[in-house]
Amino acid sequence: MSDVHILGVGMTRFGKHPDRDAADLGAEALRGAVSDSGIDPRAIEAAYCGHVFQGMVTGQRILAQVGLAGLPLSNVENACSSGATAIREASLAVRAGEHDVVVAVGTEHLTTRFRGALTPDPSDPEAAVGATMPAVYAMRATRYMEEFGMTREQLALIPVKNKTNAAHNPLAHFRDKITVEDVLESRPIADPLRLHDCSPVTDGAAAVIVMSKRAAKRYGNGRAVRLTASALRTGTVDVEPTSMTFEPLTWATAQDAYERAGIGPEEVDFAEVHDCFSIAEVLRVEGLGLFKQGEYPAAVERGDADIDGSLPINPSGGLLGKGHPLGGTGVAQVVELVRQLRGEAGVRQIEGARVGLAHCRGGKAVGIEGAACTVQILVR
Amino acid sequence: MSDVHILGVGMTRFGKHPDRDAADLGAEALRGAVSDSGIDPRAIEAAYCGHVFQGMVTGQRILAQVGLAGLPLSNVENACSSGATAIREASLAVRAGEHDVVVAVGTEHLTTRFRGALTPDPSDPEAAVGATMPAVYAMRATRYMEEFGMTREQLALIPVKNKTNAAHNPLAHFRDKITVEDVLESRPIADPLRLHDCSPVTDGAAAVIVMSKRAAKRYGNGRAVRLTASALRTGTVDVEPTSMTFEPLTWATAQDAYERAGIGPEEVDFAEVHDCFSIAEVLRVEGLGLFKQGEYPAAVERGDADIDGSLPINPSGGLLGKGHPLGGTGVAQVVELVRQLRGEAGVRQIEGARVGLAHCRGGKAVGIEGAACTVQILVR
Repeated sequence: MSDVHILGVGMTRFGKHPDRDAADLGAEALRGAVSDSGIDPRAIEAAYCGHVFQGMVTGQRILAQVGLAGLPLSNVENACSSGATAIREASLAVRAGEHDVVVAVGTEHLTTRFRGALTPDPSDPEAAVGATMPAVYAMRATRYMEEFGMTREQLALIPVKNKTNAAHNPLAHFRDKITVEDVLESRPIADPLRLHDCSPVTDGAAAVIVMSKRAAKRYGNGRAVRLTASALRTGTVDVEPTSMTFEPLTWATAQDAYERAGIGPEEVDFAEVHDCFSIAEVLRVEGLGLFKQGEYPAAVERGDADIDGSLPINPSGGLLGKGHPLGGTGVAQVVELVRQLRGEAGVRQIEGARVGLAHCRGGKAVGIEGAACTVQILVR
Repeated sequence: MSDVHILGVGMTRFGKHPDRDAADLGAEALRGAVSDSGIDPRAIEAAYCGHVFQGMVTGQRILAQVGLAGLPLSNVENACSSGATAIREASLAVRAGEHDVVVAVGTEHLTTRFRGALTPDPSDPEAAVGATMPAVYAMRATRYMEEFGMTREQLALIPVKNKTNAAHNPLAHFRDKITVEDVLESRPIADPLRLHDCSPVTDGAAAVIVMSKRAAKRYGNGRAVRLTASALRTGTVDVEPTSMTFEPLTWATAQDAYERAGIGPEEVDFAEVHDCFSIAEVLRVEGLGLFKQGEYPAAVERGDADIDGSLPINPSGGLLGKGHPLGGTGVAQVVELVRQLRGEAGVRQIEGARVGLAHCRGGKAVGIEGAACTVQILVR
């Protein structure tokens, strides 16, 4: 799918927005993407909107606010992969020849639409036995420490790294650097995870403009970035014995993406991965094949995943630092990829970045139902 | 898009299903579609699930129930056009060359997920002033009667027709024929609309299997039906002076569909249209250009829209008779189209049906935001 490109990108500040709503945030992000692209907004032919808890026809309200009412729009939902799914569907509409210029927006006003521990659904059997998201990831952290000898201090280095990156991101939810001590002394959530190990409840939105090769040539001025793969898988075989410390769904989706892109994990220069919890970053980068199983914690300790390391992970600050407005998250990852690949990431800039990967995983943490995973690969 | 076909179709009984849920109903519909198609379910490569109120990752739960966990799946939402949007996205995935065989499922367990008068959103300004769906459609009926001289008895003939059709549909919510007197004596809802003028709160699901020309050739045995257009538009210009009795959004979406299909309204043999209220059927068939503005009520009186009439409308029973499980509705319309076009509609069979049209319109009834409209054209 080398014929799909991304030109304009935009996002709101991530954080608490008590006086805003999801449509208003989405409209701001969309205006930002249009402005960044330099195109006339009337060139936009269709739109996809990813969100989880925002209710009926949220995307339509966004279009109306930016003067684009009338376009074809589909709202899409895939739990925490909703925004990434919007980009995937936009890329399919372009590849189908249906449209040349399509917007993907992801938005969530999570502070007003979500309360309580992260669980896929109130009726969920996992939730009924107390297996909320923090509880499940706490078990996975415990198991990983047991299997691979990761120390609690090594795990704490992940939020430290991501919040250091976020401190350099003016749009991040958290702007304060933290130390390992801050992590270990923060409020316990589900042993061994503490507050700084958990992504926050964030409001925010992001938007990208996906286009055909023809449109990229017409509008891009050399700034368009190629979306070489947008892979989606659902369901999961995570109930296998290895599931607590390895993610077959992430692995399988990544294989799809690498095959489509004709790019192997060794060619990836940096990645935004779904670090909804500190341990999640470990499981994801290893599931993606970016680091060997059991080796990521030591790599983080060596600084390999830092912005100036050999394979920077979550330069934007990730979900832990930049924040996690569910529908906005997957789109914001791609915003960071594009800015890095264009060399416009400022103090967060990764030198010579050519291939970026974005990974989302939504829904149940462990279980055969209700998970969705996306892997997207962008190439300068 | 003559390269997209529909082979298998399935649906549950529409009605009250107190012991079921949306995933369970969706799985039954999907199994029915697979069985009807004759294909090995392992030939299915991806899925789309349309629903409105069913919460996170509903489609993933359906796939898990039918042993298809792992496939790419996107949940889509476009208010009452959600199911139709799932078909549209499935057709784009096929046209993109991404997949050869894609399932579109629509489902809703509306009895447990929805209470109260139909309004787009609790925070909606229309709802705040009492402009719930029944109220808005009542105003439109009143205005239409004033402008075009439709009588209350003529309007009653629409539920009478649709419930007569539903009486012949073993999967319909309502199986009892009614008379004009029954309509006029039923409980008042919003003057002049009475209970029989309003679609019910229904549980149910439907599924169709969308495929490429290549797959249709391989699996179809001549039973595949061509999906020649799947048009979607959103937003609306309904605030124009003509909006109460004419639907620019329906008109514009229909023009897109006719152009794509290379078929004009005069070639349509029958249609399933979004008769959420009796007056809605009038506004839609006229908005689609199937009847001239102001002329449909008399046409119904003459029997033109009956199954043995010149242009049958809602042979399945429509939303008024078959029922209206939001996400299920748009897919169930296409199920009826396919069965009619294959000559498998039993006592509801329309003689010589070759071109069928399905229309959905979701979201706000009057307003610049929050509406979504689909028009799909199928050809034998």
